[in-house]
Amino acid sequence: MTYYPLNLVEKELGMDIEKANQEAVERMMEARPVLVGLGKAIDVIPGMKDNLLLHAGPPITWERASGPMRGAITGALIFEGKAKDMEEAQKLVESGDIELEPCHHHQAAGPMAGVICPSMSVYILENTTHGNKSYSNLNEGYGKVLRYGAYSEEVLAKLRWMEDVMAPLLKEAIESSDGIDIRSLLAESLHMGDEGHNRNKAGSILFTAKLAPLITAVTKDNKAASEVLAFLGENALSVLNPVMAACKAMSDVAHGIEGSTIVSVMARNGTDFGIRISGLGDRWFTAPVPTPKGLYFPGYTEEDASGDIGDSTITESAGIGGFAMASAPAIVNFVSGTPKDAINTTMEMYEITYTEHKYFTIPSLDFRGTPTGMDLRKIVEKNITPRINTGIAHKEAGIGQVGAGLVRPPITLFQEALLAYAEHYKIS
Amino acid sequence: MTYYPLNLVEKELGMDIEKANQEAVERMMEARPVLVGLGKAIDVIPGMKDNLLLHAGPPITWERASGPMRGAITGALIFEGKAKDMEEAQKLVESGDIELEPCHHHQAAGPMAGVICPSMSVYILENTTHGNKSYSNLNEGYGKVLRYGAYSEEVLAKLRWMEDVMAPLLKEAIESSDGIDIRSLLAESLHMGDEGHNRNKAGSILFTAKLAPLITAVTKDNKAASEVLAFLGENALSVLNPVMAACKAMSDVAHGIEGSTIVSVMARNGTDFGIRISGLGDRWFTAPVPTPKGLYFPGYTEEDASGDIGDSTITESAGIGGFAMASAPAIVNFVSGTPKDAINTTMEMYEITYTEHKYFTIPSLDFRGTPTGMDLRKIVEKNITPRINTGIAHKEAGIGQVGAGLVRPPITLFQEALLAYAEHYKIS
Repeated sequence: MTYYPLNLVEKELGMDIEKANQEAVERMMEARPVLVGLGKAIDVIPGMKDNLLLHAGPPITWERASGPMRGAITGALIFEGKAKDMEEAQKLVESGDIELEPCHHHQAAGPMAGVICPSMSVYILENTTHGNKSYSNLNEGYGKVLRYGAYSEEVLAKLRWMEDVMAPLLKEAIESSDGIDIRSLLAESLHMGDEGHNRNKAGSILFTAKLAPLITAVTKDNKAASEVLAFLGENALSVLNPVMAACKAMSDVAHGIEGSTIVSVMARNGTDFGIRISGLGDRWFTAPVPTPKGLYFPGYTEEDASGDIGDSTITESAGIGGFAMASAPAIVNFVSGTPKDAINTTMEMYEITYTEHKYFTIPSLDFRGTPTGMDLRKIVEKNITPRINTGIAHKEAGIGQVGAGLVRPPITLFQEALLAYAEHYKIS
Repeated sequence: MTYYPLNLVEKELGMDIEKANQEAVERMMEARPVLVGLGKAIDVIPGMKDNLLLHAGPPITWERASGPMRGAITGALIFEGKAKDMEEAQKLVESGDIELEPCHHHQAAGPMAGVICPSMSVYILENTTHGNKSYSNLNEGYGKVLRYGAYSEEVLAKLRWMEDVMAPLLKEAIESSDGIDIRSLLAESLHMGDEGHNRNKAGSILFTAKLAPLITAVTKDNKAASEVLAFLGENALSVLNPVMAACKAMSDVAHGIEGSTIVSVMARNGTDFGIRISGLGDRWFTAPVPTPKGLYFPGYTEEDASGDIGDSTITESAGIGGFAMASAPAIVNFVSGTPKDAINTTMEMYEITYTEHKYFTIPSLDFRGTPTGMDLRKIVEKNITPRINTGIAHKEAGIGQVGAGLVRPPITLFQEALLAYAEHYKIS
């Protein structure tokens, strides 16, 4: 493997990589995603079709899909009334009657399997700085949930309650407001022990506390409103999906900057780990997913774990999540390690990022900005891969979450992308 | 001043101070205060009378009362319909028609001036471990508020809205629940960047998120309920008063242990700083209050500051507040200093406390328990006084808050108490 010392040759080429990267991270940080509404995916997500399912990570086929991804696809098709079981689901997908495309191709991001189907409601965010929109579905909470590949009647019943009771109320509440500024909510939650990916306790209750007066003002069914508020307030991941959509809006505007070596997207589908580079267009660089290391729920071990899965690494891509772990020392009870490890994680990420965030700061590090904008050159040159906090799904369809932990993508991904960069920009 | 090496002489006296202190701190930590209801002070606080006002700190007279205390007394008497202005209030108090007694004499605690009048609603907490109850009034939020000595029509209007609209709704909501466990809420908020005295952001939204489904379920006026939820969610001190009542319930059961040198109460009335010692009954030891050092709001300086005031030091007495400041690095933006100072504050408090809290832990210190149970002997022997986070009131009645900062009580208080201890227990 050859490494290119790109920072030395750029001047000769008349290309200013530093300037391109600076522009990319400035755009990422100045993006201001505001939650402005809610709608059915089919009605609001650009390019969504009646026979399309969106999913986490880079493109995938049924054949290569992991257990939890197959489970979530099956559940979504049952939810849509298009299949009765996994066998029918498989036929629909393999025949091409049902198509699969990444959330990331549709301005969306979904946690774990990340399956978004046409009649599922999604949050609508608008980046008020640059005007782009982004989307994510509603968080289902814990236990047996679609995003971890479970699809029993219990899972479907909850999805229907979310769609029929919660979504219309959230829609009316959000639309009655001036919007909920998710960047500002994240900045606040990072001062309250969250890192924004795997610990969203503070963010979720901030979100609930902001929604409560809106929901109470618009509802015509107080019993239902009370149940929705209890569901939001007791789910420490309520805000994860709007946060992921916010990070997607931020990273989308950092993408497509000519000459930039910023890694604008990391995403996993349970089979492949994919990245995209700002200056290399829509190409995905992929490699087999690793399995996270972490803490398992009682009765489960690493033997049960699916490969790494989910679009939630969009948080790390935007400078929070594992990168902001120093903000969230209490997370080690959930993902393993010690508070010192949490600080070390953030400190190491400064070595591979381009800047320190203007708005996301870490009190315990003297309010230093979070490490933001992964620089492909630094990752390869220093041989330091990004650190990610993540949930762990069971490897078989239909089971659900088995733990939470830490994971790093393979270095080969970044090496391959750097070679492609050199080729594209004719650096030899 | 003579110091008594009490830890050396106790054996000779056949007295086991260590055992007494261990019992005091065990009781303090095992107390489990649960918010169970709300009621008018006159109906629920033991010993409350129609012509009685409770106030923060040790006993005080009108003559010796500070500006903010006089302002709050005046506002409370206007609220009760017993006075029209400060002149009338002064006459009523000086004539003895209106009596003043410390909140602490009535199982209550109030922030800043801490004035609780008969027709004001108070939270009712019950310590489910030992059965004792405690009380505190409702938090008014920021700006011009009674507890900081403001008493204009704006202040009174808000108090009336709180009494007429918010209190009945809170009462019904709380009574419809199994109670809200404030010890557990505090433990959680300490993992979310709060210290429980001057930073209660996380606790207040946890409180709001718990109340939201209850309020929405019981209300018959959704507009009012929405306003109450917005008021609770936007006030980062919403939970301060229930927290203070919880700490009062904890410290009350640590008080009155024969032979114990634990400082069970610290409280200030704006003129005197008072402490009580577990093994020395109901006697107050008092000294003139110092003025806090901190950050002032625009337009104000230390020249404007009242002397230290409020029962909120009950939080430090119970092992949180300034003692848990390492949990809340972001607080330094409010009270001055650096995140390192916040850690140093907690570390220093370990030197003068008897134990580390079982339930209140600090993630960034490897989940070490907070320094709990001030030991009078250690304070005097090491000449280290407790560190307190506090709000700062304007020294004149009618103005309000001018800043926030840090303060330490005078060492003479503790020296005097230790001499009294030696005398009481005949240690010579």
